[in-house]
Amino acid sequence: MAPGPGDKTPGPGEDARVARTRADVSRAALGVLTDEGSDAVTHARVAELAGYSKTTLYTHWPSRVDLIVLAVDALGELPHHERTGNLRDDIIGELEAFRGGITEMRLDLILTGMAQWASVEEMRVIRDKINNSGQGQMRAMLGEILDGAELEAALSMLTGVVACPSIMFGTLPDDDVIAAAVDIVLRSAQRRKAFKR
Amino acid sequence: MAPGPGDKTPGPGEDARVARTRADVSRAALGVLTDEGSDAVTHARVAELAGYSKTTLYTHWPSRVDLIVLAVDALGELPHHERTGNLRDDIIGELEAFRGGITEMRLDLILTGMAQWASVEEMRVIRDKINNSGQGQMRAMLGEILDGAELEAALSMLTGVVACPSIMFGTLPDDDVIAAAVDIVLRSAQRRKAFKR
Repeated sequence: MAPGPGDKTPGPGEDARVARTRADVSRAALGVLTDEGSDAVTHARVAELAGYSKTTLYTHWPSRVDLIVLAVDALGELPHHERTGNLRDDIIGELEAFRGGITEMRLDLILTGMAQWASVEEMRVIRDKINNSGQGQMRAMLGEILDGAELEAALSMLTGVVACPSIMFGTLPDDDVIAAAVDIVLRSAQRRKAFKR
Repeated sequence: MAPGPGDKTPGPGEDARVARTRADVSRAALGVLTDEGSDAVTHARVAELAGYSKTTLYTHWPSRVDLIVLAVDALGELPHHERTGNLRDDIIGELEAFRGGITEMRLDLILTGMAQWASVEEMRVIRDKINNSGQGQMRAMLGEILDGAELEAALSMLTGVVACPSIMFGTLPDDDVIAAAVDIVLRSAQRRKAFKR
C-alpha cells in the first residue's frame, strides 16, 4: 500500500499515490516552516498537519533536512516584477516584489532556514538554485549598467536593502528607502560613466 | 546544591557555582551553534559538550530557545575596525572586520539562527541589541555623509555586500567587491552634494 522507501526523488513513472503524498507533505512542511520557523519542522508536526502517520514520513524522508528540502520544493515561482523598460522603475519594482515575497511567502524564513541547513550538500544545492533564481532578474538589469566587482557589489547591496532589515530586525524598508538605494546605485553608475569620458 | 529554577538572568549576588555552570553551558551552546547549526542546539548535545547532566540543563533552561539565547550571550565583543580618520579606509576596514567575523565567529550562523527564533520575544530583544551593536559603527560613519532614507539604504546595502553572499551562497566578497561597494556609496554621496550646489 505505502510506496517503498528511497522515493525521495521520484521519477516520471512514479505511482500517483506517492506523488500525492509527496505534494501533501511538501505543502505541510512549507506551512510549518513559514508559520513556525525551521525548528518546528519535525516529523511529528508535519505528519499531524499533512494527515499522514509519522511512520509514513520517516519511511520516505528519514531526516529533518529531507522535510526542509520538501518544504522548499513546494515554494513554487518566486515573485518577480514584470519589466516596463524603464530601468529605475524596473529595479524598484523588482525590490518591491522581493519585499512582497517576504510578507506573503516569508522568504526571510526560507532564506535563513536554508542557510542554517547548508552544511548538508543536498540543501546547499537547492539553496544556491533558489537564490540564483531569486537574483537572476536583478543581475540582468544591473548588468546593463555595471560589470565586474561593481556588478557583484550592487547585486548584493540591492538584495541587502530588503533582506538585511528583514533578517536582522524583522522590519522592511519603506518605498523611500528602496528608491534611495536604487538611486545610490544609478547615480554612482552615471558618475562612473562621467569620469570615463 | 543546584541553583533554583528561574535563574536565567542571575543578578550580581548569584552563587559562583551557578555563574560557572552558566558560563560553561553558554560556551558549549555557542560551540554547537557555530559548528553544527542551530538545529543541533539540543539539551542532550549541549549537556554532553558542557559536561553537565541533561537534567541540570532542563532545570535552568527548559526550552531550546533558552539555549540559543545562552549561546548568543557567550558571543562577546563583535569585531570592529579601529578608525583611522580616512572615511573610505574606515568603511572598508569595518566591512572587512564583519567579513572576518563570519569566518572566525560564524556570524552568518548567529544571524540566521537568531532570525529563525525571532518569534520568541526574548530572542527578538537580544537579536535587535546584537544587530544594532554590530551596525553601530557603520551607522555613525555613514551618518557623516548621508541622512534620512539614504542613510538607512546605505547601511543595509553595505551590510548586505557581506551578509548576502554569505547567507545566500556561503561565499564572501573579495576585497575588490568590498571596495566597489564602498565606492558606489561614496561616489553617489559626492554626486548628490554636487547637485545640491
